[in-house]
Amino acid sequence: MKEVEISKAILNKYNERLVGHLDNDVVIVGAGPAGLAAGLYLAKSGVKTTIIEKKLSIGGGIWGGAAGCNVVTFEDTDILDEIGVRTEKQGGLITADSIEFATALAYGAKKAGVEIFNLIEVEDIILIDEAVKGVVVNNAAVRTLGLHVDPFCISAKYTIDATGHPAELVAMLKRRSPELFPNQLQEHFMNVEVSEAGVVEKTGQVFPGLFVAGMSVCDVYNLPRMGPIFGGMLKSGRKVAELTKDKLGI
Amino acid sequence: MKEVEISKAILNKYNERLVGHLDNDVVIVGAGPAGLAAGLYLAKSGVKTTIIEKKLSIGGGIWGGAAGCNVVTFEDTDILDEIGVRTEKQGGLITADSIEFATALAYGAKKAGVEIFNLIEVEDIILIDEAVKGVVVNNAAVRTLGLHVDPFCISAKYTIDATGHPAELVAMLKRRSPELFPNQLQEHFMNVEVSEAGVVEKTGQVFPGLFVAGMSVCDVYNLPRMGPIFGGMLKSGRKVAELTKDKLGI
Amino acid sequence: MKEVEISKAILNKYNERLVGHLDNDVVIVGAGPAGLAAGLYLAKSGVKTTIIEKKLSIGGGIWGGAAGCNVVTFEDTDILDEIGVRTEKQGGLITADSIEFATALAYGAKKAGVEIFNLIEVEDIILIDEAVKGVVVNNAAVRTLGLHVDPFCISAKYTIDATGHPAELVAMLKRRSPELFPNQLQEHFMNVEVSEAGVVEKTGQVFPGLFVAGMSVCDVYNLPRMGPIFGGMLKSGRKVAELTKDKLGI
Amino acid sequence: MKEVEISKAILNKYNERLVGHLDNDVVIVGAGPAGLAAGLYLAKSGVKTTIIEKKLSIGGGIWGGAAGCNVVTFEDTDILDEIGVRTEKQGGLITADSIEFATALAYGAKKAGVEIFNLIEVEDIILIDEAVKGVVVNNAAVRTLGLHVDPFCISAKYTIDATGHPAELVAMLKRRSPELFPNQLQEHFMNVEVSEAGVVEKTGQVFPGLFVAGMSVCDVYNLPRMGPIFGGMLKSGRKVAELTKDKLGI
Amino acid sequence: MKEVEISKAILNKYNERLVGHLDNDVVIVGAGPAGLAAGLYLAKSGVKTTIIEKKLSIGGGIWGGAAGCNVVTFEDTDILDEIGVRTEKQGGLITADSIEFATALAYGAKKAGVEIFNLIEVEDIILIDEAVKGVVVNNAAVRTLGLHVDPFCISAKYTIDATGHPAELVAMLKRRSPELFPNQLQEHFMNVEVSEAGVVEKTGQVFPGLFVAGMSVCDVYNLPRMGPIFGGMLKSGRKVAELTKDKLGI
Amino acid sequence: MKEVEISKAILNKYNERLVGHLDNDVVIVGAGPAGLAAGLYLAKSGVKTTIIEKKLSIGGGIWGGAAGCNVVTFEDTDILDEIGVRTEKQGGLITADSIEFATALAYGAKKAGVEIFNLIEVEDIILIDEAVKGVVVNNAAVRTLGLHVDPFCISAKYTIDATGHPAELVAMLKRRSPELFPNQLQEHFMNVEVSEAGVVEKTGQVFPGLFVAGMSVCDVYNLPRMGPIFGGMLKSGRKVAELTKDKLGI
Amino acid sequence: MKEVEISKAILNKYNERLVGHLDNDVVIVGAGPAGLAAGLYLAKSGVKTTIIEKKLSIGGGIWGGAAGCNVVTFEDTDILDEIGVRTEKQGGLITADSIEFATALAYGAKKAGVEIFNLIEVEDIILIDEAVKGVVVNNAAVRTLGLHVDPFCISAKYTIDATGHPAELVAMLKRRSPELFPNQLQEHFMNVEVSEAGVVEKTGQVFPGLFVAGMSVCDVYNLPRMGPIFGGMLKSGRKVAELTKDKLGI
Amino acid sequence: MKEVEISKAILNKYNERLVGHLDNDVVIVGAGPAGLAAGLYLAKSGVKTTIIEKKLSIGGGIWGGAAGCNVVTFEDTDILDEIGVRTEKQGGLITADSIEFATALAYGAKKAGVEIFNLIEVEDIILIDEAVKGVVVNNAAVRTLGLHVDPFCISAKYTIDATGHPAELVAMLKRRSPELFPNQLQEHFMNVEVSEAGVVEKTGQVFPGLFVAGMSVCDVYNLPRMGPIFGGMLKSGRKVAELTKDKLGI
Repeated sequence: MKEVEISKAILNKYNERLVGHLDNDVVIVGAGPAGLAAGLYLAKSGVKTTIIEKKLSIGGGIWGGAAGCNVVTFEDTDILDEIGVRTEKQGGLITADSIEFATALAYGAKKAGVEIFNLIEVEDIILIDEAVKGVVVNNAAVRTLGLHVDPFCISAKYTIDATGHPAELVAMLKRRSPELFPNQLQEHFMNVEVSEAGVVEKTGQVFPGLFVAGMSVCDVYNLPRMGPIFGGMLKSGRKVAELTKDKLGI
Repeated sequence: MKEVEISKAILNKYNERLVGHLDNDVVIVGAGPAGLAAGLYLAKSGVKTTIIEKKLSIGGGIWGGAAGCNVVTFEDTDILDEIGVRTEKQGGLITADSIEFATALAYGAKKAGVEIFNLIEVEDIILIDEAVKGVVVNNAAVRTLGLHVDPFCISAKYTIDATGHPAELVAMLKRRSPELFPNQLQEHFMNVEVSEAGVVEKTGQVFPGLFVAGMSVCDVYNLPRMGPIFGGMLKSGRKVAELTKDKLGI
Repeated sequence: MKEVEISKAILNKYNERLVGHLDNDVVIVGAGPAGLAAGLYLAKSGVKTTIIEKKLSIGGGIWGGAAGCNVVTFEDTDILDEIGVRTEKQGGLITADSIEFATALAYGAKKAGVEIFNLIEVEDIILIDEAVKGVVVNNAAVRTLGLHVDPFCISAKYTIDATGHPAELVAMLKRRSPELFPNQLQEHFMNVEVSEAGVVEKTGQVFPGLFVAGMSVCDVYNLPRMGPIFGGMLKSGRKVAELTKDKLGI
Repeated sequence: MKEVEISKAILNKYNERLVGHLDNDVVIVGAGPAGLAAGLYLAKSGVKTTIIEKKLSIGGGIWGGAAGCNVVTFEDTDILDEIGVRTEKQGGLITADSIEFATALAYGAKKAGVEIFNLIEVEDIILIDEAVKGVVVNNAAVRTLGLHVDPFCISAKYTIDATGHPAELVAMLKRRSPELFPNQLQEHFMNVEVSEAGVVEKTGQVFPGLFVAGMSVCDVYNLPRMGPIFGGMLKSGRKVAELTKDKLGI
Repeated sequence: MKEVEISKAILNKYNERLVGHLDNDVVIVGAGPAGLAAGLYLAKSGVKTTIIEKKLSIGGGIWGGAAGCNVVTFEDTDILDEIGVRTEKQGGLITADSIEFATALAYGAKKAGVEIFNLIEVEDIILIDEAVKGVVVNNAAVRTLGLHVDPFCISAKYTIDATGHPAELVAMLKRRSPELFPNQLQEHFMNVEVSEAGVVEKTGQVFPGLFVAGMSVCDVYNLPRMGPIFGGMLKSGRKVAELTKDKLGI
Repeated sequence: MKEVEISKAILNKYNERLVGHLDNDVVIVGAGPAGLAAGLYLAKSGVKTTIIEKKLSIGGGIWGGAAGCNVVTFEDTDILDEIGVRTEKQGGLITADSIEFATALAYGAKKAGVEIFNLIEVEDIILIDEAVKGVVVNNAAVRTLGLHVDPFCISAKYTIDATGHPAELVAMLKRRSPELFPNQLQEHFMNVEVSEAGVVEKTGQVFPGLFVAGMSVCDVYNLPRMGPIFGGMLKSGRKVAELTKDKLGI
Repeated sequence: MKEVEISKAILNKYNERLVGHLDNDVVIVGAGPAGLAAGLYLAKSGVKTTIIEKKLSIGGGIWGGAAGCNVVTFEDTDILDEIGVRTEKQGGLITADSIEFATALAYGAKKAGVEIFNLIEVEDIILIDEAVKGVVVNNAAVRTLGLHVDPFCISAKYTIDATGHPAELVAMLKRRSPELFPNQLQEHFMNVEVSEAGVVEKTGQVFPGLFVAGMSVCDVYNLPRMGPIFGGMLKSGRKVAELTKDKLGI
Repeated sequence: MKEVEISKAILNKYNERLVGHLDNDVVIVGAGPAGLAAGLYLAKSGVKTTIIEKKLSIGGGIWGGAAGCNVVTFEDTDILDEIGVRTEKQGGLITADSIEFATALAYGAKKAGVEIFNLIEVEDIILIDEAVKGVVVNNAAVRTLGLHVDPFCISAKYTIDATGHPAELVAMLKRRSPELFPNQLQEHFMNVEVSEAGVVEKTGQVFPGLFVAGMSVCDVYNLPRMGPIFGGMLKSGRKVAELTKDKLGI
């Protein structure tokens, strides 16, 4: 029956992809701008990379521009040209359509070879020999409903927290070992100039096996928040890709 | 101040785009597979086209594949090759990654020149001289909260209901003039073979100025539902683009 | 890594079982007393049988006895002795512990070889050549959250609606073809004497390919409701097993 | 089309007003009695002033009088006579209709030239060179729904926290720099005599660029709460206008 | 004690006003634009008039302009000049600030002498000798919580349904006597030209003792909806005031 | 009109009673067993006493007995005989019907002359010259809905916290002056023997002007919880009445 | 252990009472004014009577007077004097305190010997030989949570629907046999004069074995609603007691 | 009447069982894998044992396998063979069907003689002479709704906290005596190897009269979490049975 053939094709293909990506070089949590950019550059270099996203759709905070006005800004066209986003100069800024930016970036990352699992939510970290070795995940709908159901595990040589403001993985470390991150995990007051540069500069490893990229960096280092300007996010993603490739010897 | 410059750039650019698209050749409601495909082909032909989407992200029912297994199926690679989606043969079917499909399709439509406004929800139809002449819309967040706030209007020579199973625009017509659509607006029991063909065949105008495409077609004509197979959706979108171009004399 | 080995073992085994049961002789919707009894007797005869249950746990209305007093009643020990439930005479009735009854029945069905998928919810019916040929299903958590995600399909030569009072599958038929079931789908006022016999007598096929068992029978035929007496439920399940085996020529 | 002309007129006018008020002399957060009074006196002196209000309507806690009995009290008619509110002596007190008071005050502020944006919610503070330089805001409906959408910015030479009991802006400062406000931000037990005088006396600057007025003053200085007596609120608003005008050299 | 004096002043004053307005010449349900305008013109002529409003604030759908852009439109400045709203010509339309319009109108009505009770919700109609003789009301918070608490009554020689789209009072008549209003109570598709005139023309008595004004007129006569243009609302309010004054012989 | 006469009679009578009880000798917060008993004995001695209860009905935790089995227990019939509750000996205990107990106690208190206002919720304490001088209250429905509406005040020479486990008034003192009550406000583990005696013994004044009675005593002194045995509650209520009468010199 | 002795005493006593009242002469559903009055007069005559109430407390709509002003009205002191409620003349009406009225009535009914089970909700009717023979009930908390748990049964020679406006038992009959009650079950517009008399006159049997009393009478016969005047309720309760005693031959 | 006979049989039997188990040798809180295993081994040795479970069904986190894939894993077949669960080797692991495992384990425990009360929730601990002597419980539905209803008590010589991750009983001890458990009650990061052994090793008494078993052990000792591998749970349950039997001298 055609209906069953379709079901079989999907279930088998998905299981093959999911089981095939339980072991990774790098696992990225969060398919927002920094996570997608990190995935794009890692996959381009042939690193086996999986992105975990708890929502059904990807793109994080890109879609709504500012207050729902779906336009985003940048300071230059670096990376945008590479992924094929059309831009416009407006005063000293570059603007682009937020939907074009979100889809071009994700499409670029997919074409480069990154694997993305949506509707999968991180519950916890795998910690072996005092290093992060991947994440404990579950069906996001099951978790949202508070059903009492066990998770499964996705391992990686390196894990990237690209979860944005909550810095979810860092927060899990801090909850059990508060001394590791004595500061509150929060961004500082809005200041674009300081933060566009700072977020890239501070992108890096914060615990053996765990890197931060994108707005998670602001939380960990109490950098200012930025609003709808996305160049720092992309560059932070690219930098974390470079750093993990170095670790992997690529 | 940089923060204010960013805000100005976004607010001005958005207002320019929004006000610039209050008059259209075609307005499409729903940025799912059929609506995006319709937008893609209309924009390619230079038709001034706007898509309205009430969610923050686009893609409709594509993202989750079947039951969250993010794989989608097709019967052939028509249109997919054109928008650059990588496919694989599996038994008698074609499979693709649902995230790649969603982003490639939307990115393709944007590059072709379609305008998309997300987080905008249709409240009603504009009816002048017994023909649909566009839609009455509002901020989707304002509406979800049930705030008592008036809408605004987006006009078009032709309007396409690509809202999927609710067939929202047809339902608005039926609520006031039940005799126009005496059948219940609902899809029939699952039967893929019958429906992949039927949905394309029945795509068309259902009231002066109003066309249906995608799953809305199934609702209006009580065709079977289909599940996660998307070829019919794309072809329905392409067909409705052809039909409206004919009307526009393009 | 041990964590990943566990994940692989579970995901692969589950996919093998699920894909292996997309085609069935009989699919039963609802793992309450009638559905489990039907599954027990079908599996005992070697019929390939799958039970679909939308909740995380099985047992339907058995667990709470009356108003949470976890005792259930029967008129005789038929079937109970067979599945190993200890009973007690109390006046003219037989009582048993509801937890013992629920677990013995489900455990018996599993040992007989029935496949049960919990947390899977029926969305629709597959209708081919005017006969029910299985069900359209989805992840129950995804559905409860109202996420826009497509379903998959489970086919069967015969389908049993053991969904209890909502008679969900019959209701789906009735929604599209009200003339098939002109009565309201509802049980009548409480009357145990009339209904314990009637529910077994009326158990049977209601549409090509579709059978009803258990409280669904009461809804379709407007039989009285019964309360916490379960003999009729078990016998209805056993009878529907006999009827479908006849159809299958077993 | 008339419908589209109306939409254009509104969208263009709103964008002109909003973009025109992204830079201000003074921004006031909260359109309750103190915020409106501050706006009234600032605008009367020609200061470019914008009030941000997260609710759809303005007036804060004025509308309901005490427990919904829509009468408010004052100790004298100062300011009330000026804005045209009819009063009555009742014992040693002055009473007025709460609806008349709310609308006369807001109408007076508007006529004086203040700009008010309702349905806009403050998310954060802009902090440059260790001084508050405005606020980070968003669509209040988008925020209430918890949508992942970036904010925009409204700058000002001076910012007034007139948010009432939560003292929202002071609380944002305190969350990141608890040492700045070591006391809990809360009003003390009810004591009208002490507080009507105290709230005016303590109205002032609490951090470079940030002033408090109205009930926010009580929170910051742990003054007693007051209930439905509004003279202190109005005078606190008038005083903060004087103080910021001094700073502006007006 | 000062605190108790304030409480006494408010409770006594409110009780005096409320009990003093249990008998009226005219009671208006709904303090939106049409209800406030009706109240303004009735009170100006010395008619004893009470407006009942279930929300805490008045103004109905005025505050949010279109989609939260707080600008409203008119076709001429009639009535606006009278209540002191500043306007601006924009294309063929008149625009005004929605907050200025809402507060000027309500303040004008109050100054003219109308009584307004907010947070009071209509539960039912008083029907004596086959004529509407007032309304049955309750505390709106008590009703929202579904508490089992009886209402009280406000009588009037004439009652005006200015409840907007739900046309609440007409709907109560229709629920018990469907034959009185055989049409569905709903506005028709958007068409500003037709409706700005029609809503004024059709304003009038729909049952002995009961008048409709504002958007309730559109519901009763299935006139088109209008969006954020408010001239018709004001004129409908003024007309219903004239009609009821005629009935009262004033 | 009869309907309006009824409304007038109720509104006037209620206002007279409420305004007449804004000044009291004693105000009791909570109409559970201890609060009602305190009210009964105070009113019997002619003390002007008002009980405030946030729920619509009185009786607190009496109605449901244990887990909804509506039977309550006592160690002796003291007080019960006085208020006319029929009892039964069962083992070493006294049992009574919980509904009979709740209604007899409240009816007795009313007959003795206590004033009770239900649906009124305490928001805060009035503190003058470092002594509690009454409570700040509001409409409980308005508060439950979180409406922004000011409270009113009820003064008393002495205030009794009979709010049960939350010890609401003590908690308000502690929130602003944690040093006054360094212990957590919580009852200890269940131990009936210890607590039936202890709760009476510790009943008394905890701050100038503020007394505790009933389960609030357990919270303040960390006494064990008791479950459905009510003798201690009644005796604590009687004792607090004696203590406040002493203070009042009665 | 004292704690366990208390538990045993309550559980045993409750089970004895509940099981002892599974068979009754009369079962009354709803412990509002009419149900309590019916219970009072039946029990006074020695009829074995049980009242079922789904809420935790009894009293129905008495507690809140009008809009929370806890005063109730009557046309005479009949029955009130009998149960010991103090009244006051106010104009042509009698007023009483609503809390005194609720508790005196329930206490009177209890003393007369009626059994009341609170927190028990009616699910359905027992219908044997075309006559109502009692009710199907469940734990009200279990039902409110929608848990899948079976009910139990309480039988009676005669059943009284005193459920107020929903007329719950009549509605259950009507749902299955709409022809029995062709009118909508709803009260008519407010008209006190007509209804105070009508509700008593129409009190009576509506189906073999089923009587209606109180506001349920208004629903069945479309009598006007009444508001906070309770004489008719009490007299309806007394009348239904007389009618059922006649049937029982008492 | 048959309906009432059924009700009587159930209510009487349940009361007999419940009252008969208010005194126990051992009470186990939580009917998950560890609690059921503990109950199984205690009952096999003739220890009077009661399990309390707040949900309607038993089994805890067993039913959903990993992320809803209903397969569970083990390191060996110990205990599984004993309770009759069919297993399969998969790589170095043992897999079983989660539904078969849950029902076989619970059925085995019931047959061994354990008493289980579902829909009963623990509220508190009974503490006498500084030792835990049982638990304070309530109807779980009543508690979920937040109804103000007192609990009852179940006593035991020894109490086992098998509540899983919340370690509910230990948390109650810690809330009142934080010094007893200075560590946060939380499991550590995922590490299966360490925890499968550790959870059994640490199973034991944590306070006079109180034992922990299963995941509660991980919380108390900050052991790693484990995911869907259940051998340690079963062995922890068996071990706690041995330890309490030793204490009981069995």
